[in-house]
Amino acid sequence: MMNGIKENDKSVLVTGGAGYIGSHTVAELVENGYKCIVVDNLSNSSYESVARLQILTKTHIPFYKIDLCNYESLENIFEENKIDSVIHFAGLKAVGESTKIPLKYYQNNLIGTLNLLELMGKYNVEKFVFSSSATVYGDATRFPNMIPIPEECPLGPTNPYGNTKFTIEKILNDLYNSNQSSWKFAILRYFNPIGAHPSGLIGEDPLGIPNNLLPYMAQVAVGRRDKLNVFGNDYETRDGTPIRDYIHVVDLAKGHIAALKYLDNKIQKDEGICREWNLGSGKGSTVLEVYDSFCGAVGNKIPYEVAGRRAGDVINLTAKPDRAKRELEWETKLNVDIACKDLWKWTTENPFGYQLKHVVEKFAEAVDEYESRFVTIGDGTKFQATIANIGATLVDLKIDGQSVVLGYDDESGYLNPETCYVGATIGRYANRIENGAYKIDGKEFKLTAQDNGNANHSSINSYHNKRFLGPLVQNPKKNVFTAEYMLLDSEKTSEFPGDLITVVKYELNVTEKSLTMTYKSELVDGKATPINMTNHTYFNLNKVNKDTIEGTIIQTVTNQSLDVDEALIPTGEIISREIETFKSQQPTTLGKEEPKFDCCFIINEKERLTTLDTTNLELRSVIRAWHPESNINLEILTTEPTFQLYTGDFLCGKFTEREGFAVEPGRYINAINRDEWKDSVILRKGDVYGSKIVYKFSQTNI
Amino acid sequence: MMNGIKENDKSVLVTGGAGYIGSHTVAELVENGYKCIVVDNLSNSSYESVARLQILTKTHIPFYKIDLCNYESLENIFEENKIDSVIHFAGLKAVGESTKIPLKYYQNNLIGTLNLLELMGKYNVEKFVFSSSATVYGDATRFPNMIPIPEECPLGPTNPYGNTKFTIEKILNDLYNSNQSSWKFAILRYFNPIGAHPSGLIGEDPLGIPNNLLPYMAQVAVGRRDKLNVFGNDYETRDGTPIRDYIHVVDLAKGHIAALKYLDNKIQKDEGICREWNLGSGKGSTVLEVYDSFCGAVGNKIPYEVAGRRAGDVINLTAKPDRAKRELEWETKLNVDIACKDLWKWTTENPFGYQLKHVVEKFAEAVDEYESRFVTIGDGTKFQATIANIGATLVDLKIDGQSVVLGYDDESGYLNPETCYVGATIGRYANRIENGAYKIDGKEFKLTAQDNGNANHSSINSYHNKRFLGPLVQNPKKNVFTAEYMLLDSEKTSEFPGDLITVVKYELNVTEKSLTMTYKSELVDGKATPINMTNHTYFNLNKVNKDTIEGTIIQTVTNQSLDVDEALIPTGEIISREIETFKSQQPTTLGKEEPKFDCCFIINEKERLTTLDTTNLELRSVIRAWHPESNINLEILTTEPTFQLYTGDFLCGKFTEREGFAVEPGRYINAINRDEWKDSVILRKGDVYGSKIVYKFSQTNI
Repeated sequence: MMNGIKENDKSVLVTGGAGYIGSHTVAELVENGYKCIVVDNLSNSSYESVARLQILTKTHIPFYKIDLCNYESLENIFEENKIDSVIHFAGLKAVGESTKIPLKYYQNNLIGTLNLLELMGKYNVEKFVFSSSATVYGDATRFPNMIPIPEECPLGPTNPYGNTKFTIEKILNDLYNSNQSSWKFAILRYFNPIGAHPSGLIGEDPLGIPNNLLPYMAQVAVGRRDKLNVFGNDYETRDGTPIRDYIHVVDLAKGHIAALKYLDNKIQKDEGICREWNLGSGKGSTVLEVYDSFCGAVGNKIPYEVAGRRAGDVINLTAKPDRAKRELEWETKLNVDIACKDLWKWTTENPFGYQLKHVVEKFAEAVDEYESRFVTIGDGTKFQATIANIGATLVDLKIDGQSVVLGYDDESGYLNPETCYVGATIGRYANRIENGAYKIDGKEFKLTAQDNGNANHSSINSYHNKRFLGPLVQNPKKNVFTAEYMLLDSEKTSEFPGDLITVVKYELNVTEKSLTMTYKSELVDGKATPINMTNHTYFNLNKVNKDTIEGTIIQTVTNQSLDVDEALIPTGEIISREIETFKSQQPTTLGKEEPKFDCCFIINEKERLTTLDTTNLELRSVIRAWHPESNINLEILTTEPTFQLYTGDFLCGKFTEREGFAVEPGRYINAINRDEWKDSVILRKGDVYGSKIVYKFSQTNI
Repeated sequence: MMNGIKENDKSVLVTGGAGYIGSHTVAELVENGYKCIVVDNLSNSSYESVARLQILTKTHIPFYKIDLCNYESLENIFEENKIDSVIHFAGLKAVGESTKIPLKYYQNNLIGTLNLLELMGKYNVEKFVFSSSATVYGDATRFPNMIPIPEECPLGPTNPYGNTKFTIEKILNDLYNSNQSSWKFAILRYFNPIGAHPSGLIGEDPLGIPNNLLPYMAQVAVGRRDKLNVFGNDYETRDGTPIRDYIHVVDLAKGHIAALKYLDNKIQKDEGICREWNLGSGKGSTVLEVYDSFCGAVGNKIPYEVAGRRAGDVINLTAKPDRAKRELEWETKLNVDIACKDLWKWTTENPFGYQLKHVVEKFAEAVDEYESRFVTIGDGTKFQATIANIGATLVDLKIDGQSVVLGYDDESGYLNPETCYVGATIGRYANRIENGAYKIDGKEFKLTAQDNGNANHSSINSYHNKRFLGPLVQNPKKNVFTAEYMLLDSEKTSEFPGDLITVVKYELNVTEKSLTMTYKSELVDGKATPINMTNHTYFNLNKVNKDTIEGTIIQTVTNQSLDVDEALIPTGEIISREIETFKSQQPTTLGKEEPKFDCCFIINEKERLTTLDTTNLELRSVIRAWHPESNINLEILTTEPTFQLYTGDFLCGKFTEREGFAVEPGRYINAINRDEWKDSVILRKGDVYGSKIVYKFSQTNI
């Protein structure tokens, strides 16, 4: 779904927004036009969920790794943001664990909430949606006629976790009663959330042995656990197993939107409220019914064993959800079958949840540096790539432990103005635009000229120093890792027309030692824009021995190249360059200073590009390079019609001349100003720009 | 009660120990041989209660002004002390206030308790007596047969204060259940504490308008409030007013000792407990019954008016105290009449509680500096004295704003070795002991000689740099202020035999411009000891003009003086000094350098002192001094037989030669080594040493 870039002043602070219910609620909030700020101490969750949410929602989601118990840090968020409301998920939540370390539960859950409420008071934030639990009811079967459980059922939690939720409900009630004309508290009592987002991108990722039925079954289904234990089949129910009210987490998430809208729309500014709503389906399922449903989704009967009843379990906990339906106009839509199907998609696509083997992340120390991460995919294998959020830059690429590309150790290197685009994604428009000027549909545009009177690599709007969202890191099959980055390229007020959503996806194939970069871009708002993207890696196949490309042997698919003027703008002619092609028996050797290349080769001058999206076209090998000392062999393939070869004779920053060479597949230089090429670089609403580049390595001679 | 110096390793940390119930419990704890450490943030209490407790219990009570919500500060206490158990009183406690600022109640009461429990776990402190409240029951009349209220009555607090107590009970229960072999929790549910300590020294001192019946009645009785409001006389009780279970605060305090002893003696080391006990009398009294009782104590009917019922009030809250009687072997002994009598004593002797007009205190900044206070009595009047805990030293004395004694600005001045005893209490043995050696009952003792081969002013054991306990500051009648200090002078392992309790009481009479110092000492342990005390103030009646005593005119009661050798040890002869007596028409004028005096005058050589305690003997004027420039006139009176006059010719520290002169009434120099004087300076078990000195001022000529 491509719903455009949201602009909405209603910032919702979502505590625990990286967790299971929190992350699904963030997805729904964004869907409903709310701006979210996520705070999470990540004690039982992963930043990956936030990175994925950014990709899923195509939205920047500010994240703070902060413990709510740290008042000063929490206050920073209130100081730095205009917060309109708070949805408070953060809290320890395992019933069993709470009986073992109750003090930690009280400390964490109560102090965090008290700090939050104190700061809400201080910063005049009045709306608060609280993540309570059906646990506050305790055993409702001890009263007559309290199944299904209405909100009026007397409370009586039976464990420390439930006590913390109960206490917070009391605090909210007391606080509301102290000033009934300001506080707006919605207390949501969850029944049993299950399932996952239908995208398969976010879901429940419990640490250790899962406490709940569905995650446990899922782990049995993927072989992480032996068998399911069914605790008691001698209850007086239709099949002897206890009845619970299972609710799809997406339905549950939508309940929060309903509550927030209720506070927003039904309660006056000078009016207060403190009210509880059950979020449940009203339909109870037995353990065995859920088991059947899940096995149906899996397509297989997973092993189970009946064990004795578990202390504290009761026969039936089904919600009476009438109040939420009546007042919040919310009810569940997704049944247990759908939840099981979505859970199974999440589980199969993420068998180890957010934690992938062979993927490591490096963060800066400061809490807000989650957006300047370096992620290494294939870590610990024979082929690994490190990619940065800044510029979706290829920071490092290692073959058998040997680095073959130039890169910086941390983000500050890439923020240096002298970066020379090392490893970066180049966009929105790679290579030169003559005079920085172009015309689309009769309208003229002018970029800042920064390169001999022309604009190179988009000039001041270059992608290389913009922070991309994500990544969504996946391991879709054995030895294949993907990392997907997204840029909300909103430049319509500046030198380019139109807002883009640009996606850069790296796919590392360890077996094949290939790294594939796929570029996609769509125009989400504004007018048609020029587009041309590439990757600007500098290769040095002998980095371990020397800081020069000297001795590298190269061959290209062609020696046909655009003739250019002194400022590297094509004249319109095509000429032959002095470089050996694949056909040659004597490839070109790069020397200490010569030959110098900074020119654009045309893979097939007779071909005319008829699609803006080349990703489905044939990948063609365009250049091969080899260094005899390292015996590392590089082949670059692309779906693009041209490639710029640059021997790095002006390399700058911490790098020296000819320390690496760059190969930049793309469209014709300055195509936007040439009628014959123009169509291949104009992105219009509804079209998709796409291109693909592959770096492939081997250690046999050319 | 003189019960000796306690030595017991069972340190009890008493949080909120400066408060009403806390302070009474500290008194009982000390009485029962427990060592107490008091922590209190003084947000609703006064350090005066601790100072008074020290005097009352004759015990040093370490005090920390710390908020339990400050984890790091609280941890310091656990690091610095060996804590055996905790009695936790600290907490906000006003029901009405709690409904207005509930968040503060939850924050303060819960976070403080969580910190405390966390630290107890960390430092292996297992025993915890918690100050809960009958408030946790809410309205017990909503159940049948729950009056009197047993511990099994279902809980249901109806206000934030009660909710915090309820939550803490839950926390304790959950924590105990998480480890049933260590935690020992006694939850004490108080009914209505009333009354005060029978000494009249400590009692309830509510800030603002009292919330409770008895303190309110007391303030009506002393005229601070107009009349009592009786909220409702239409309840179905014997006189129409609601019934409560009033319990004397001393009984309540004893309940804590019973609980602590129960945890100590009835629960095994590797056993845990978490149990609730009601602390109440089991006997309900109506409001009007208590009113009658209090009027009986006052001897007067105080005005009252019947007002409407108060929201939240219930008809009857009477404890069923059987469990405490059975298990803790505790029951109330003091009825409402006694409580009213004790309250009335406290109220009349302290009509404004601990806050006295014309008394100010100066503390050092650090929290532990409560023991190095300077207290000014008579502040803002025409005659005021500032006294320090260090050495029970007279720091300053001002006549109509003009200072007439030498002193330092803060305690560090007095801790300087070069202090010259400025203003200090001199003890245990003032003036010289020849060779520092003496013999009592055939046993020889030797002090460190520090003064020309002799011991002066007790040498290294001098009182002047010891911190005294207290003070107990009182305002017994208009314009009269007293400040009582106490020293637990435990030197029996050192140069003096025997442990003393020494009391120094200053009495300032603003009308008469007199400052009376009374010294008392008792031997509480060990063998007979030499004793001789005095005050070592240096006067300068013209301080405002000059830093010299030059020009001061003096006269003495006598010129008869002990003949002394070069080291100022009496030879046994009595000689006449060149000084004018009261009979003279031409008094002696002190010059820039002459006359020099450092000699002991004998008031009546024919008199033989037959009692160790002179405080009941006649006060005699012994010296008069006047300065014509300031027109300030000093007269010193004493019950002692001699006085040392010293013109300060060796004054040191920040002071210069002859900047002040000292007059030190006392016993004969070196009396302990002279058979004819010895009896007057030996303190034996059962005897009391006493002496009295008066500094009296006027502004008329001699």
